[in-house]
Amino acid sequence: MPEAFTHTSLPGRIVLGPGSLDQVPDEADQLGISKVLLIATRSARDAADLLEVGLGDRFAGRIDEVRQHVPKERADQARAKASEVGATGLVAIGGGSAIGLAKAIALTSGLPIVAVPTTYAGSEMTPVWGETAEGEKTTGTDLVVLPKTVVYDPLLSRGLPLEVTAASVANAMAHCVEATWTPKADPITEVTAVEGVRALREGLLSVLAERTDLEARSNLLYGASLAGSALATAGTGLHHKLCHLLGGSYNLPHAETHAAVLPQVTRLNAGAVPRAKARLETALETDDLASGLFDLFAQAGVPTSLRELGLTEEQAREAAWKFAAKAPANPVPLDEDTVTEILLRAWAGERPTPAAAERPEGVTQ
Amino acid sequence: MPEAFTHTSLPGRIVLGPGSLDQVPDEADQLGISKVLLIATRSARDAADLLEVGLGDRFAGRIDEVRQHVPKERADQARAKASEVGATGLVAIGGGSAIGLAKAIALTSGLPIVAVPTTYAGSEMTPVWGETAEGEKTTGTDLVVLPKTVVYDPLLSRGLPLEVTAASVANAMAHCVEATWTPKADPITEVTAVEGVRALREGLLSVLAERTDLEARSNLLYGASLAGSALATAGTGLHHKLCHLLGGSYNLPHAETHAAVLPQVTRLNAGAVPRAKARLETALETDDLASGLFDLFAQAGVPTSLRELGLTEEQAREAAWKFAAKAPANPVPLDEDTVTEILLRAWAGERPTPAAAERPEGVTQ
Repeated sequence: MPEAFTHTSLPGRIVLGPGSLDQVPDEADQLGISKVLLIATRSARDAADLLEVGLGDRFAGRIDEVRQHVPKERADQARAKASEVGATGLVAIGGGSAIGLAKAIALTSGLPIVAVPTTYAGSEMTPVWGETAEGEKTTGTDLVVLPKTVVYDPLLSRGLPLEVTAASVANAMAHCVEATWTPKADPITEVTAVEGVRALREGLLSVLAERTDLEARSNLLYGASLAGSALATAGTGLHHKLCHLLGGSYNLPHAETHAAVLPQVTRLNAGAVPRAKARLETALETDDLASGLFDLFAQAGVPTSLRELGLTEEQAREAAWKFAAKAPANPVPLDEDTVTEILLRAWAGERPTPAAAERPEGVTQ
Repeated sequence: MPEAFTHTSLPGRIVLGPGSLDQVPDEADQLGISKVLLIATRSARDAADLLEVGLGDRFAGRIDEVRQHVPKERADQARAKASEVGATGLVAIGGGSAIGLAKAIALTSGLPIVAVPTTYAGSEMTPVWGETAEGEKTTGTDLVVLPKTVVYDPLLSRGLPLEVTAASVANAMAHCVEATWTPKADPITEVTAVEGVRALREGLLSVLAERTDLEARSNLLYGASLAGSALATAGTGLHHKLCHLLGGSYNLPHAETHAAVLPQVTRLNAGAVPRAKARLETALETDDLASGLFDLFAQAGVPTSLRELGLTEEQAREAAWKFAAKAPANPVPLDEDTVTEILLRAWAGERPTPAAAERPEGVTQ
């Protein structure tokens, strides 16, 4: 244990199990929600139809049009709709976009949210909200947007295609691994993060063998929940800030970027958090965290190089230069050379070598 | 992971580190507490004096007289005092009794609590309150009594005598182990409980080597916090209910009873929770959970037999008979024979044999 730490636990209730979608009306009742505004992503329409019936008299209205990054017009329309139908609570079913829209409504109205996530993004476990106006995304943290109850039903994610699953798992895995070295890292969050990695790995390997395996889908939701929880308390660091720069400046897909960048950042940082490294290695059943992550992502068929995602070597160098100028706090000091090495390795998709000290002179092969 | 589960996370902030007592005024400010009623157990008077100075203008009054089990007259006096001094918040420093009195005030007033625990009882992490009137203890659960912030300062428990330390650790260890098999057990609580056992064992062994070891005292507070947290979410089961019966009917000391009973209950139940058993064995660095616990308590010098605590064999048999009539839900079915075997083994202080199937006919040696 470190000599001193601070940890803040967030309140919340989780209900996980096959068929737990049926429990949403009861959970709404427990929160005293009598009029529900239902928010559903396109892919969750069938489940939303079932839920609408299940909610009975509690059903007050529905929004089916949700977009990534919560555009301000959509948020304003949704807020108007919530007050128009007299909603006393929100049920969001789908991925990060549906939950994000519910958060936007909660932010100004204080309405409680029941979240029913169908992906592994983890947003349902965090008090972070975001809204986009004129191409600029504003984000913030407010406990009022944290879902009161999260219902995880593995039946709803059973059909998620393998490539979407694997990329989403890489994203969740990154939340866990990075949670061990951010400036706000603490031992309680670390334990959550390690269990998250264990469950995500187990779930991912089983899903690779059988895409609709229900126990595996349960494990992935469980791991995603822990990952979201770790993100909520530890925040982000070098890895996520790099991925956001790559996504923002070069339009790379968010989830996929993680698989290429995480092993390289881990290669740099893991040695600075030896206890977490050892625990994560046990959870991942590997003897080297960085290459273990790389191999798992490769096995799952997620691109492990930024080159495959369309970035040029020039852009990787440019990104390193941009990033180094405003590098975040990190256990290993960051300069342009260090960041360039990470990004060139991520660009090339080089398998991390176990010991940084043994690395060859050139960073690309 | 089990097929389905429900988990409720409680809100709270933990600040742990040597000298963190000095952070109490800031923590009170963060909670918007302008007038503090300070509640201190006798053993924490010096720390309370320091705190009184540190609180400066925020200090509104102080209660030094606290008693076990929160007698109703004391609670009423304390409530009157809180309103008399215009307190907007409470700071409780000491063991379970000081925190219990603060909870009694919070229950009727809603005042926020900052807890500064000096033992390993874990009450500061739970929303459970208790009050005793005319020899009858009433208990309940209310989120309003859950401390908003808990400040753990290992300097305050550095002087705790070894025997008090070891018994208090046995109590905390019991919260962790039992949290894995109560009816409300869930995988997230299990992870917390396993980390608690790891930290408690590590802290206890170091304290046995050097009583004032500050890192060990930090580890014990950390473990006690996790144990309290596990108790808050998983509740109690066979083990704690047995200990309460023994304490209530035969006046046995609460903390010490745990060391004698836990290994025997674990011997019965551990096989029914194989995943938790394996994880707890890793955390305890033993190949058999029940005997590992027994050996650790014996090494720490805590009595491991109820006989040493003054119980007679007759009373052990009587307790088993009383208990079996209202036995709680348990992973292994309970009848009078099973309970009698547990209590006679606990009475004799018999080292649990690794496999229940291999046990000898007689239960006492």
